[in-house]
Amino acid sequence: MKNYTVVKKKEGARIELHDKLSLTGAKISVNTLMAKTCVPFSYSHKENEEIYYVISGDGTFVIDNDKVEIKEGDFIKIAPRGKRQLFSNEKGITYICIQVRENSLNQYTAKDALI
Amino acid sequence: MKNYTVVKKKEGARIELHDKLSLTGAKISVNTLMAKTCVPFSYSHKENEEIYYVISGDGTFVIDNDKVEIKEGDFIKIAPRGKRQLFSNEKGITYICIQVRENSLNQYTAKDALI
Repeated sequence: MKNYTVVKKKEGARIELHDKLSLTGAKISVNTLMAKTCVPFSYSHKENEEIYYVISGDGTFVIDNDKVEIKEGDFIKIAPRGKRQLFSNEKGITYICIQVRENSLNQYTAKDALI
Repeated sequence: MKNYTVVKKKEGARIELHDKLSLTGAKISVNTLMAKTCVPFSYSHKENEEIYYVISGDGTFVIDNDKVEIKEGDFIKIAPRGKRQLFSNEKGITYICIQVRENSLNQYTAKDALI
């Protein structure tokens, strides 16, 4: 079996990569909120931290009692217990959402590499 | 302490997000290879799978005995044992690299959410 899996770019549609890429340490999706819409609920996580990367557009996260503006190129990490809801602004927003289990990484880069 | 951490876009420089975002389940970086350059060695990992997302440009991964072309918008996952080396093409390549521990994700999305 090959040691890699590829997913090519598709315009528009939501992309769920966990199964397509045979991921075992993360759940990754690409999502678009059209202009002036929102994820329809506020939620937290039991054990996963989330990291968002904004591909294009901008939006506002309501996290606990804060409003956090995010735009193209920004990253945001939200701890499992953060209560979150994402709203798009006038342009809509396309973003990558990464879920990983909190405290699951043991080592990385030089310590984990075999050169 | 706030339940979130933000990193705003910066042009050009390599961005290491593990410490900046207080990540505990992933190591994430944004990297650029200028035109016709490469990561200077081929390597595998002990326990981490890697996921790459191409922000712009294109390149060629040499993985084990295969050549895999990747370009803007593509995702690729490489299992820990895959021996990999990334080469840029004429345009250079800017990409996100995500390291997570193989088999570390227990549950996700609906099963892990608290609404």
